[in-house]
Amino acid sequence: MSHAAAQAEPSAPITVPVPLGERAYDILVGRGLIGTAGARIAALGARAAAIVTDAHVGPLYADALAASLEAQGLRISVTVLPPGEATKSYAGLERVCDAVLEARIERGDLVVALGGGVIGDLAGFAAAVVRRGVRFVQVPTTLLSQVDSSVGGKTGINSRHGKNLVGAFHQPSLVLADTALLDTLPIREMRAGYAEVVKYGLIDDPGFFAWCEAHWREVFAGGPERDRAVAQSCRAKAAVVVRDEHENGDRALLNLGHTFGHALERITAYDSARLVHGEGVAIGLCLAFRFSASLGLCPRADAERVEAHLKAAGLPTRLGDVPGGCGTVDALLDAMAQDKKVKGGALTFILARGIGQSFIAPGIEAESVRAFLRDETNTSRP
Amino acid sequence: MSHAAAQAEPSAPITVPVPLGERAYDILVGRGLIGTAGARIAALGARAAAIVTDAHVGPLYADALAASLEAQGLRISVTVLPPGEATKSYAGLERVCDAVLEARIERGDLVVALGGGVIGDLAGFAAAVVRRGVRFVQVPTTLLSQVDSSVGGKTGINSRHGKNLVGAFHQPSLVLADTALLDTLPIREMRAGYAEVVKYGLIDDPGFFAWCEAHWREVFAGGPERDRAVAQSCRAKAAVVVRDEHENGDRALLNLGHTFGHALERITAYDSARLVHGEGVAIGLCLAFRFSASLGLCPRADAERVEAHLKAAGLPTRLGDVPGGCGTVDALLDAMAQDKKVKGGALTFILARGIGQSFIAPGIEAESVRAFLRDETNTSRP
Ligand SMILES: NC(=O)c1ccc[n+]([C@@H]2O[C@H](COP(=O)([O-])OP(=O)(O)OC[C@H]3O[C@@H](n4cnc5c(N)ncnc54)[C@H](O)[C@@H]3O)[C@@H](O)[C@H]2O)c1
Ligand SMILES: NC(=O)c1ccc[n+]([C@@H]2O[C@H](COP(=O)([O-])OP(=O)(O)OC[C@H]3O[C@@H](n4cnc5c(N)ncnc54)[C@H](O)[C@@H]3O)[C@@H](O)[C@H]2O)c1
Repeated sequence: MSHAAAQAEPSAPITVPVPLGERAYDILVGRGLIGTAGARIAALGARAAAIVTDAHVGPLYADALAASLEAQGLRISVTVLPPGEATKSYAGLERVCDAVLEARIERGDLVVALGGGVIGDLAGFAAAVVRRGVRFVQVPTTLLSQVDSSVGGKTGINSRHGKNLVGAFHQPSLVLADTALLDTLPIREMRAGYAEVVKYGLIDDPGFFAWCEAHWREVFAGGPERDRAVAQSCRAKAAVVVRDEHENGDRALLNLGHTFGHALERITAYDSARLVHGEGVAIGLCLAFRFSASLGLCPRADAERVEAHLKAAGLPTRLGDVPGGCGTVDALLDAMAQDKKVKGGALTFILARGIGQSFIAPGIEAESVRAFLRDETNTSRP
Repeated sequence: MSHAAAQAEPSAPITVPVPLGERAYDILVGRGLIGTAGARIAALGARAAAIVTDAHVGPLYADALAASLEAQGLRISVTVLPPGEATKSYAGLERVCDAVLEARIERGDLVVALGGGVIGDLAGFAAAVVRRGVRFVQVPTTLLSQVDSSVGGKTGINSRHGKNLVGAFHQPSLVLADTALLDTLPIREMRAGYAEVVKYGLIDDPGFFAWCEAHWREVFAGGPERDRAVAQSCRAKAAVVVRDEHENGDRALLNLGHTFGHALERITAYDSARLVHGEGVAIGLCLAFRFSASLGLCPRADAERVEAHLKAAGLPTRLGDVPGGCGTVDALLDAMAQDKKVKGGALTFILARGIGQSFIAPGIEAESVRAFLRDETNTSRP
């Protein structure tokens, strides 16, 4: 009956509302939230919960979560999947759906995703399709999932044609971002998530970017700055999602750094030993700013400031930083053209006029991207 | 360039609107519609179409459909799957999703389901999840799919825990019910679909049931009565769907005959050599009426009239009609309890006060069902 997490004295969490009409929900951010999960999830009216987690996170936190739910009389099951991107597959979907059905989850009940973006995306997708939709709660355990993937309702799996190409929009009923869970996160994963935090400043909040430059050490170390960074990121993402839930317009801004980033992930065959998502994003953010500068859209000093900050936080910033290299310019372009942000053949980029001033730039010519990347590969490998 | 279907001179089709707000669409019913598919689908603004069909239907109609689409400048692909319920699986989903991605279908483009309910449910589900949703058009080729599965937006696959347990609500953009395609349908499939036609009369339209008693032979033979029966069925289903798109209430009426029917399908292991869906429904309709009569809810004469009509049309009406038998009463009850219409443990049935007077009856005691089934198994096997 005694669990460290349950015993922690949580300070009042920060609440970030996501006002999506009948799909509205709250994101709670704070240390020790996992010990309060049972009461909060029971308040949603569920009688059973299927917890989905991975083999890194499960042994650390599944018992505390399960105990909190059971203490409220919820019937629970726990499914533990292999960690890593490969789990976001058709086979993973089948496994989670079958586990949720096995647990006799009905429409009023819940799936609880306890893990990083891989578990959140997969379990959320399973919740979207089991019985044509059951509710789900996100308990994100990586910085990336707390500030990005658990917010906004995009769920899915990967196909051999590309990442996240099969999925659903399915909003969670609640997000519990327990920032204490990040204390066990490998530093490399922490950094990768931090790239997404920085992204929100770069999109439209220069003040937040400056705050990050001043406080990133405290965010990494834990404490109130971490909660503040997570909550501010969730607020930023929620604002965009509310404006464009189904990604027909504005939401594309969130892809700042991602067209390049995804291409790098594809080139490195999603091998996390070489590159994790957030590292691809960090390089992508730098490329987006340098590309904007090379097009004369953005001051070069801003691109340099972006690079300096990400580098200070320990993130890669150049194509040459990718272990094992990132292939030829043509291979990179090809990988970019396969991205789902291709509309009618033309490339859409998110570019910037400066820090906190990004915009959607459709119809970018492949030739100008090629010329820019050629320069980059030369300067990257001196 | 010359195709029988394309050359057919179609009379003006009957239009059944499905007024679902921003998801509104039309069902067109008529002979020879497949030859007009290209123009109608091009009018939806798609530039590419991924046709999904099965190995029975493809050789008969895929060329005509493809030619009609290509004549309008649409880029097309054709994926042919094995016929039968087993295709509605995770593996089938993966295959169709990958084929749709391979065909580079983007959000404005279309998936076209050319086949019976198996293909419609599977291709519709794939359309719901590829890129988190692309549009799709139903070209139903069985009577069952024309009057039932292609209307209402329920899509999905089967899991080892039961039928249709994994899926999505995803409305088509258009339904083209070409009644001439039913000319090649095996008589047993025709009869199975006819059980669903009769169901609409039994739910709330005694006049339509009487019309069916008078005209079923013409429906089977083809001609204007067939079109009329299909259109009237679509109208009936559309009305219920519009009242309750996501099956939280009223839509359950459509399950008349299905709680028993699904249990029979489960008991016969979905072996279509023994029982196809519509045959299970025919027996289920008779059971629902006889159960209602046994509870004193419905005149016995109505139950007899239902049975007489379905029998006249060549359909099974008794548990004893299932080739190879349908197991013990307990096995049947168990199969029913697994059905997704179980809410909090109690059984929900659709019962009737008479022909055209069905209603949702939640909280039916397992004991009274058991007693009824015991009688049925005795009278079925004299
Ligand atoms: N849905 C969206 O909107 C969205 C947005 C961005 C990214 N994503 C997806 O998110 C995924 C990446 O998410 P991620 O970076 O969280 O990866 P992840 O889920 O693979 O987690 C990274 C690693 O950290 C481990 N881990 C997680 N929490 C831990 C903890 N508290 N302590 C110790 N180890 C822990 C995991 O087991 C894993 O090995 C990608 O699949 C990406 O496509 C989705
Ligand atoms: N989505 C819904 O709302 C809904 C409703 C009812 C049933 N269903 C589903 O529908 C499925 C049953 O549909 P079905 O009865 O159409 O089965 P089906 O798709 O398996 O078709 C029956 C057989 O007829 C063949 N066939 C189809 N059209 C033909 C034609 N024109 N000529 C010759 N042969 C043809 C098929 O190849 C198959 O062998 C089940 O999986 C059931 O769960 C869905």
